[in-house]
Amino acid sequence: MLYLIIDILGAAAFAISGVLVAMEKKLDLFGVLIIAFVTATGGGTLRDVLIGNKPVFWMLNPIYLFTILGAVILAILFVNQLKYLRKTLFLFDTIGIGLFTMVGIEKGLEAELAPPICIILGTITASFGGVIRDILCNEIPVIFQKEIYATACILGGVSYFLLAMTPIDSAYSYIVAIMIVIVFRLLAVKFHIALPNIYKVKK
Amino acid sequence: MLYLIIDILGAAAFAISGVLVAMEKKLDLFGVLIIAFVTATGGGTLRDVLIGNKPVFWMLNPIYLFTILGAVILAILFVNQLKYLRKTLFLFDTIGIGLFTMVGIEKGLEAELAPPICIILGTITASFGGVIRDILCNEIPVIFQKEIYATACILGGVSYFLLAMTPIDSAYSYIVAIMIVIVFRLLAVKFHIALPNIYKVKK
Amino acid sequence: MLYLIIDILGAAAFAISGVLVAMEKKLDLFGVLIIAFVTATGGGTLRDVLIGNKPVFWMLNPIYLFTILGAVILAILFVNQLKYLRKTLFLFDTIGIGLFTMVGIEKGLEAELAPPICIILGTITASFGGVIRDILCNEIPVIFQKEIYATACILGGVSYFLLAMTPIDSAYSYIVAIMIVIVFRLLAVKFHIALPNIYKVKK
Repeated sequence: MLYLIIDILGAAAFAISGVLVAMEKKLDLFGVLIIAFVTATGGGTLRDVLIGNKPVFWMLNPIYLFTILGAVILAILFVNQLKYLRKTLFLFDTIGIGLFTMVGIEKGLEAELAPPICIILGTITASFGGVIRDILCNEIPVIFQKEIYATACILGGVSYFLLAMTPIDSAYSYIVAIMIVIVFRLLAVKFHIALPNIYKVKK
Repeated sequence: MLYLIIDILGAAAFAISGVLVAMEKKLDLFGVLIIAFVTATGGGTLRDVLIGNKPVFWMLNPIYLFTILGAVILAILFVNQLKYLRKTLFLFDTIGIGLFTMVGIEKGLEAELAPPICIILGTITASFGGVIRDILCNEIPVIFQKEIYATACILGGVSYFLLAMTPIDSAYSYIVAIMIVIVFRLLAVKFHIALPNIYKVKK
Repeated sequence: MLYLIIDILGAAAFAISGVLVAMEKKLDLFGVLIIAFVTATGGGTLRDVLIGNKPVFWMLNPIYLFTILGAVILAILFVNQLKYLRKTLFLFDTIGIGLFTMVGIEKGLEAELAPPICIILGTITASFGGVIRDILCNEIPVIFQKEIYATACILGGVSYFLLAMTPIDSAYSYIVAIMIVIVFRLLAVKFHIALPNIYKVKK
């Protein structure tokens, strides 16, 4: 139950971030709807396809479809409020990342895959929707460029597996890992924490 | 049988539309072949992967491969006739869309999925080949921009499910739904019918 | 065993080619890692998804993950040596293509698919990692433009099936087919062999 709620909240957060990017690109109503749908479901869809869960998650429960539709309608109606808040896009994105990382790890565990593979699945679930969104809008995916993104997912995933070795209740570890992803990404952006530079600086 | 013929006609129509786009991009012979193949099979492949049909449809029956090869050879031979007919590209595309929408809905019904999910599958089958074609050619997919496209698929899909509630024979509903997609899209482009503008006009 | 070694060598070769492209695009450490991973596993992943092998190959054996990580670390450490050697990128790419073509054909045979479909699967395994790499870096995939690529895969695949009809041991045919792909591509580039021009030259 907790799991379904988290999955749906993540879908709504990502759908809204999809609407904002699509409207910046001036796509028409269906373009906006499709980008929102793909942003919200893309990561989980790829995860299910790679694991071999069939059919993919959003086909079995219409609640995902209705959640995304609702989020798109709200986002279009209140776009003027949203679009002057550049931080809102970022916040929704970050919340979605945190929630989806743990959903992906959970599905990997259900399929009895090894922890490193589960962490990759969590990262895919969290990031691939945004990657498709950017590819469809013909941009180099944000994730590959400037921001701490995958790092936050991996950190959250590792934390979860470390907490799982303690006597802490699994539901708490789950929530704590989500918070770690979100807080780490927010702090990383606020304090400009970046990965070590792998390119030699020319002198 | 009717179903297989429709699927193959759709593949040929989409393969030709793929050849025309690829030749405009001056791709080499294999580039043209691959784009044609992907345009013709991409939508159905994604549909089968999402549903979990394995292996995907074109692997089980070599007729798809030979149909696409034949269509590519014909299109390359007669490209001079085709390319001065800009409307031809559009017409083949539209026929493919109509045929594939119903093929996708049919496959969704076979997998016992809910009608809204079937309509999404029909839309994916009809549109995703063109989306991949455009992504591979490094353009923002046509579907997200100016044309009535997904709207036509959805309208045809909804019509099919409405007709299915009447005593009309299923094969007729099938054909009627295909015609609705094709005619609606042709009329929409001819009379410049567009989706309601979701962007406020600046005064 | 031979098969696993070939698969891992191919993954390492493609991972290095991914690192070099990603570093040219100045992606950050994780961007580089993701592009290397996707270049190395993308073709095999698509192949497994299309056939319906579940989960996809790299989830079952962590050796792929560690091989790619190792190759990325080596490539980053020795990038200065590598990057002045433009031919190195090309050579690694070509070796990966040869190895992966046969891995893909093998998997198709295991799934009892027809020879032409197996050859397509070999070509997908060999080329799709590079296609995703180029799409993610926002370029028209190299494969669609100037180089003999798919042609080499198809030639190798056809050779394999022809050799399989002779009394030659299957392991030898396997190695010979890999060499045909590699040698043909190297010769094609060296002697500027290209596909026949399908565009009429304007006089």
